[in-house]
Amino acid sequence: MTGAEGGFRATVLTLYPEMFPGPLGVSLAGKALQDGAWSLETVQIRDFTTDKHRMVDDTPAGGGAGMVMKADVLARAIDHVSGGHVADGRPKLYMSPRGKPLTQARVRELAAGPGAIMLCGRFEGVDERLIEARDFEEISIGDYILSGGETAAIVILDAIVRLLPGVMGNVMSGETESFETGLLEHPHYTKPQEWEGRRIPDVLLSGNHGAIDKWRRSEAERLTKERRPDLWQAHRALLKK
Amino acid sequence: MTGAEGGFRATVLTLYPEMFPGPLGVSLAGKALQDGAWSLETVQIRDFTTDKHRMVDDTPAGGGAGMVMKADVLARAIDHVSGGHVADGRPKLYMSPRGKPLTQARVRELAAGPGAIMLCGRFEGVDERLIEARDFEEISIGDYILSGGETAAIVILDAIVRLLPGVMGNVMSGETESFETGLLEHPHYTKPQEWEGRRIPDVLLSGNHGAIDKWRRSEAERLTKERRPDLWQAHRALLKK
Repeated sequence: MTGAEGGFRATVLTLYPEMFPGPLGVSLAGKALQDGAWSLETVQIRDFTTDKHRMVDDTPAGGGAGMVMKADVLARAIDHVSGGHVADGRPKLYMSPRGKPLTQARVRELAAGPGAIMLCGRFEGVDERLIEARDFEEISIGDYILSGGETAAIVILDAIVRLLPGVMGNVMSGETESFETGLLEHPHYTKPQEWEGRRIPDVLLSGNHGAIDKWRRSEAERLTKERRPDLWQAHRALLKK
Repeated sequence: MTGAEGGFRATVLTLYPEMFPGPLGVSLAGKALQDGAWSLETVQIRDFTTDKHRMVDDTPAGGGAGMVMKADVLARAIDHVSGGHVADGRPKLYMSPRGKPLTQARVRELAAGPGAIMLCGRFEGVDERLIEARDFEEISIGDYILSGGETAAIVILDAIVRLLPGVMGNVMSGETESFETGLLEHPHYTKPQEWEGRRIPDVLLSGNHGAIDKWRRSEAERLTKERRPDLWQAHRALLKK
């Protein structure tokens, strides 16, 4: 267990505990870990094998390439963490490209909760019966394939930890960022006023806060329309309600 | 520089070089790094400041919360890596929630190329003029906010490295996975045949390979329709062409 008791409790089930905390041990998340805003426990899945070869996977039923992680081994690891079939109150998340795409709204929900139990698969995936029997929520960080669930778990924890009470302080507003308003964020500029012949837009130097807000809103809308028609449609639909 | 010369060359510009290789130094990606299938160079952005306070950021033009990373400092760091305005042939990627969502098709393109220069922002983001002047491609790993671009860069590299020649070997098929067919992947099962009263579907134990393929295809279609109508529509549209 890294980090003090209390705060958001993350438990990660993995074949590679040495990947954690990794980047989460540094900077904002690392300081929050030291300060006890969250805690991180890793569980080595292989410790829950019972055969002499310590096998965590086996060949897929029906044939085909790759290996599948065994339901019995995974169930023992999970039951050890969560106290058997009695849930410990934390959501059980399985990192999976078949899962529901992660959104900032889901990140906020998770950050407001007691923590998460995160299962990181490797190889072709885990036995489907394990997902059903232990009621895992399959969660995807995007439409691409990783070598395992570990880097996905790191991303989800990174997104969660910055929202925990006291972590960001005054570093960032959190409120005007991409997705928090349903729009992509407007462009940012800082000094110098002119750089390589490129000037900061005049309105931002005008001191007219009404005009600045209007410009930022208009740029956020323009970028969202251009780059993410899917988000723009969702935003418009929400406004009409 | 970690990893031998040759192979896919990743250069990461960051304020936190100590986050790398992190999880990418372990398991599949770590072995590929040792074997020289890819190399990883980190560049400390702060080394390219010229003022005595070594400032990498400044307050946003037009006011508001947070800080913005300075165009001049970032440009010096990037020009140092890529040899000035002359591109070194590698795509320049800015990790940004405003970017184009990463897809497995883009991962394949990147993996087939010479490498990538990856810029990791912190705080509110980077000065827009830097993105324009150095022709960065904004790339997003998903619709959520991270504490910085570093964990996104790790995810993108994880997705790329497993596709590099020689990395996966026979470990995984790579061909029948989620997104490679435009569909989510079918469920997997492995021994035992019965576990906690749950049986592997009979068809997978039938030895009838035609029936097994048909079942897997049908399950992939069912899951995609149920969980990701967006992917299902795209898949259908592609089939009609």
